[in-house]
Amino acid sequence: MVPHLTTALTGPLLELERCFLDRETRIEHWLRAQWQEYVPPFYTSVDLRNAGFKLAPVDTNLFPGGFNNLNPAFLPLCVQAAMSAVERICPEAQDLLLIPESHTRNQFYLQNVARLANILHHAGLNVRIGTLLPEITVPTRIDLADGQHLMLEPLKRLGPDGRRLGLEGFDPCAVLLNNDLSAGVPDMLQGLHEQSVIPPLHAGWHARRKSHHFAAYKQVAREFGAAIGIDPWLINPDFEVCGKISFHERTGEECLAANVDALLAKIRAKYREYGVTEQPFVIVKADAGTYGMGIMTVRDASEVKALNRKQRNKMAVGKEGLQVTEVIIQEGVPTFETVDDGVAEPVIYMIDRYVVGGFYRVNTARGRDENLNAPGMSFKPLAFSTGCSLPDMAQAPDAPTNRFYAYGVVARLAMLAAAVELEQTASDAVAA
Amino acid sequence: MVPHLTTALTGPLLELERCFLDRETRIEHWLRAQWQEYVPPFYTSVDLRNAGFKLAPVDTNLFPGGFNNLNPAFLPLCVQAAMSAVERICPEAQDLLLIPESHTRNQFYLQNVARLANILHHAGLNVRIGTLLPEITVPTRIDLADGQHLMLEPLKRLGPDGRRLGLEGFDPCAVLLNNDLSAGVPDMLQGLHEQSVIPPLHAGWHARRKSHHFAAYKQVAREFGAAIGIDPWLINPDFEVCGKISFHERTGEECLAANVDALLAKIRAKYREYGVTEQPFVIVKADAGTYGMGIMTVRDASEVKALNRKQRNKMAVGKEGLQVTEVIIQEGVPTFETVDDGVAEPVIYMIDRYVVGGFYRVNTARGRDENLNAPGMSFKPLAFSTGCSLPDMAQAPDAPTNRFYAYGVVARLAMLAAAVELEQTASDAVAA
Repeated sequence: MVPHLTTALTGPLLELERCFLDRETRIEHWLRAQWQEYVPPFYTSVDLRNAGFKLAPVDTNLFPGGFNNLNPAFLPLCVQAAMSAVERICPEAQDLLLIPESHTRNQFYLQNVARLANILHHAGLNVRIGTLLPEITVPTRIDLADGQHLMLEPLKRLGPDGRRLGLEGFDPCAVLLNNDLSAGVPDMLQGLHEQSVIPPLHAGWHARRKSHHFAAYKQVAREFGAAIGIDPWLINPDFEVCGKISFHERTGEECLAANVDALLAKIRAKYREYGVTEQPFVIVKADAGTYGMGIMTVRDASEVKALNRKQRNKMAVGKEGLQVTEVIIQEGVPTFETVDDGVAEPVIYMIDRYVVGGFYRVNTARGRDENLNAPGMSFKPLAFSTGCSLPDMAQAPDAPTNRFYAYGVVARLAMLAAAVELEQTASDAVAA
Repeated sequence: MVPHLTTALTGPLLELERCFLDRETRIEHWLRAQWQEYVPPFYTSVDLRNAGFKLAPVDTNLFPGGFNNLNPAFLPLCVQAAMSAVERICPEAQDLLLIPESHTRNQFYLQNVARLANILHHAGLNVRIGTLLPEITVPTRIDLADGQHLMLEPLKRLGPDGRRLGLEGFDPCAVLLNNDLSAGVPDMLQGLHEQSVIPPLHAGWHARRKSHHFAAYKQVAREFGAAIGIDPWLINPDFEVCGKISFHERTGEECLAANVDALLAKIRAKYREYGVTEQPFVIVKADAGTYGMGIMTVRDASEVKALNRKQRNKMAVGKEGLQVTEVIIQEGVPTFETVDDGVAEPVIYMIDRYVVGGFYRVNTARGRDENLNAPGMSFKPLAFSTGCSLPDMAQAPDAPTNRFYAYGVVARLAMLAAAVELEQTASDAVAA
């Protein structure tokens, strides 16, 4: 039942891990106070990069799609955290509609949906799955490779004037999205004022911007750094934004080059301060969207001026074929962790305000300064063997249980930033 | 790290387990609604008896003393649940004073205190341990057999007029009792109006009565039975009370004999209804107090009239030498579970409203209709190998994961009864 997996745990000692260990009570106390003020997202996953000298989030996902990759031994933690989340969203009701992505052929993703439905079921909900796929017009059974199956059902508007969303014979109290809305909010989800939609629609990638998130994260990191007594740079990836880019028409290149230059200079100065001998790099990616499309590693401003047609085409198109016009230039954080000669980055999963597990994304075909979550690239998930809540002073700071604690801390800071971000953008969404 | 223990899982199929499995969502939904209304105790342990035909709590402990017996794999569950409990009791603060029982020589109990302090530490609290032992006048290190150690410190009243309780240099926001106050509320704990004392003082055995608890439980079982569609007798141990007994002076024997008779008649009728061929029995025990002192198995009313001096002496004295004058006569629930030829009863642990683990109390020297938690008797704890939150319809109702789920459900009903009981007796405590 409990897989005893090796973990990616060789590399230089991270001073930060020792600091987190020493200050566990202050950290937990500080986080507890934050959750008195902000509402945590229903669920969150955070991609981290551990450079040895720096540990930072590089992507915060509000529609996590890898619950199937978590260690099954952590399922009770997921159920307990989901109980807490459910009390928040529909304490009185018991029917929940889950709307997944429309990938019916991605077995890994479908196993995630099955795992998620299972967690929510054990938390005490009747869960049914509604699909946005127009070709599914009757309940359709999808068999999974692992012997499970899912029942996908067509969505249906219910009630007077179709004010509610449900399925045939199923009028849920809340709608849980596991679909990131990259292509915008479908009509089926518009105007639902009587049911909670979780996460809120403005958390979808049609509206969300990485730069909003990382601006909120910067502020969180600053306050956390002040409270705990660390330089926020140790956990914060710096960034710049270019708002009007056309990779096809080659406009906005100057903005991009200037920002790449400025950011590389800042990183270089910090590397000097900390005696880091690595070559600085930045990551250029779409400010909206996910799934690792249009992501570029840049080590010098000249590189963004000399893109060939193929590179420009790749950068220009995001998920669901959307044009990329806004980009974020983010400080690159190399990963120093490896598993079986593959480069590894930790991904942390949270439900409500609790860390419920994590895994390593391992990619043997990519470098340590490249994006590991690219479409069509195989990555191997490697579930964490121990939890993230049991740091042990008696062990070395880089012992698995201590390293995972540090990952859980930084991931929760990113989750807190997402909570702040969603609160800020909620008022924009209402004002718009 | 994760012990794979065998569990006490042979015996007749329990129809109730199948019923709980089928109705998991309704059960969780019903419990969720109760926690909207009642505040769960900080922590609770419940002794259960599984007769095959009946599954019932026989003791609900609000000062649980066996956290060290839980499977270490469940520690993250404990920490997560404790985080939730801590948010409730002192969201803003971080200093907690833990007051244990005054057994400094019981290594098992001291390991429980160490485990508990560890859980609370990981939940983000500075925990220090204050002792009621008058002989401890300076901080005193106690070494534990497993290599850990505890620091016991003398309690001290703080602030103007000594209105607060703490230690030298430590002014906590809350006081967590792991001491059941069998001998009454010591002066040191009187008049603390500025700090939360958890559980509240009236939860101590100086004031608490088993009959209050089981009256509340009877009501909980009735409502749960109605909601889920089961006969509450299947989960409820019937009881009677005698309020004025003196075992030494042989007064109150008639009350005792009459109530034993009446209760046995009721059990006999229910056994006929369900085709149970066992011989009915009742347990006579002190209405206040714990630790299995003064507990008697009775199969016929004549037995309580014919007690010899030795038996009377044994019944007359409870924990801390207190005289027993009030007794509860409780329906005996035989246990059908065995481990290594020993009789086994499950003990379930909860923090806040979550089940965090359990173990079997295994006793090779006692019969299946006797109390297994007796002073001086060796019992062997056997940690549950899986959690209590993951029933699996694909497995048999008596598979470990399903049986443990059933145990978790009944234990949570007993915890709910304790919440109701504490609310009811709080007003008595104020009125008194």
